[in-house]
Amino acid sequence: MEKIKEVAGCVVLIYDHHKRDLLNVLTDIQHDFQNVIISAQHIHLDHHNCLEIIAVKGSPIEAVKLADRLKAVKGVRHTTLSMSTTGKGLA
Amino acid sequence: MEKIKEVAGCVVLIYDHHKRDLLNVLTDIQHDFQNVIISAQHIHLDHHNCLEIIAVKGSPIEAVKLADRLKAVKGVRHTTLSMSTTGKGLA
Amino acid sequence: MEKIKEVAGCVVLIYDHHKRDLLNVLTDIQHDFQNVIISAQHIHLDHHNCLEIIAVKGSPIEAVKLADRLKAVKGVRHTTLSMSTTGKGLA
Amino acid sequence: MEKIKEVAGCVVLIYDHHKRDLLNVLTDIQHDFQNVIISAQHIHLDHHNCLEIIAVKGSPIEAVKLADRLKAVKGVRHTTLSMSTTGKGLA
Repeated sequence: MEKIKEVAGCVVLIYDHHKRDLLNVLTDIQHDFQNVIISAQHIHLDHHNCLEIIAVKGSPIEAVKLADRLKAVKGVRHTTLSMSTTGKGLA
Repeated sequence: MEKIKEVAGCVVLIYDHHKRDLLNVLTDIQHDFQNVIISAQHIHLDHHNCLEIIAVKGSPIEAVKLADRLKAVKGVRHTTLSMSTTGKGLA
Repeated sequence: MEKIKEVAGCVVLIYDHHKRDLLNVLTDIQHDFQNVIISAQHIHLDHHNCLEIIAVKGSPIEAVKLADRLKAVKGVRHTTLSMSTTGKGLA
Repeated sequence: MEKIKEVAGCVVLIYDHHKRDLLNVLTDIQHDFQNVIISAQHIHLDHHNCLEIIAVKGSPIEAVKLADRLKAVKGVRHTTLSMSTTGKGLA
C-alpha cells in the first residue's frame, strides 16, 4: 500500500455510553485525529448502546492508527474500519 | 400549532468538549429523547469546540423540550432549533 | 458582520426526491461549495420526503450563498440556515 | 445467524455522482429500505466522487439485501457492509 496516499471510509464503533469516562476518552482521541476525521454520526441504539460512525479521509496509516486507538478503549464492544482509495495518490 | 403532530428538523449545538461532564450530560439527555432523535452529526471544529447537529422527527413539543434541556447545560455556547412540518397531522 | 471570518452551522432542507432532476441539481450545487460544506446528513422521512442537513464551516458569505442557491431549487419545500461564530476571526 | 434478530452498522459507498441517474437510483433503493435505514451521511470527496455512509439498524437479512442492491448499481465503485449484533434477539 506504499503508493496509496489517500483513502476514504469510516470507523464504526458500538459502545455503552454509561461506562465511566468513555465518552471523554473517545472524543479526546478523535480531536487528536482531526487531520483524517471529517465528521461522526452518532445513533442512540437503546438506553445504553451507541452506534458511532466516524467518516475518515486522508492517510491510510492515520486511519488505521485512529481505529486502533479507539478499539483499545475499555468499554468499546465493536470496532470495524472500512477504507477505499479515492483515486488520488495511485502511481 | 395544535394540529401539527409531526415536525422534522434539527437542534444545533456548539460546545467545548473539555468542560467537565458536558459530554455525559448531553448524551444522557439525548438518550432520554430517543422518541424524537433520529441521529446526531458531530464535527470537531478545533481542539476545543464541537459542532453537534441532532436530527429530529416527531412531536414538536418534544423537540422544543429537547432543545431547552440541551440549551440549559453549562458549557453549551450556542443552541438553535430548526423545525418544519412534514405534512403529517395537518387537519 | 465584517469581522467575522468563520462560522459553523447548517443548512436544513426538506424536499420531495421524486421531483425531476432535483437530486442532481442539489448535489451539483453542493459540490460547488466544497469550501464550506463538511458533510451532509440525509434522512428518508417517508416515501417522498427527505430531510437533508448540510453541516457548514467557513465564510459566512459563502454559507448564505449556498443556502440561497439551494432555496431557489424548484421542489425544495423548506430551507433554513443556522450559523454561529466559531470564535475565529473576531477582532 | 438464525437467532440474531437485530444488527447495527453501516453500508459504505463510493460513487461518481455525475453518472446518469445514479443519484435517483440510489435514493429510490434507500427509500425502499426505510425499515433498516436510520440516516445517511454524505461527503463530497472531490468534484466527482461522493462517500456515502448509510447507518442501518434492524434485520441482518434486510441489511444484506440493501447492500447487494446498492452494490449492483452501475457507477458505484466501492461497497462495504459492516454489521454487529446490538445484543437484542440473541437466545
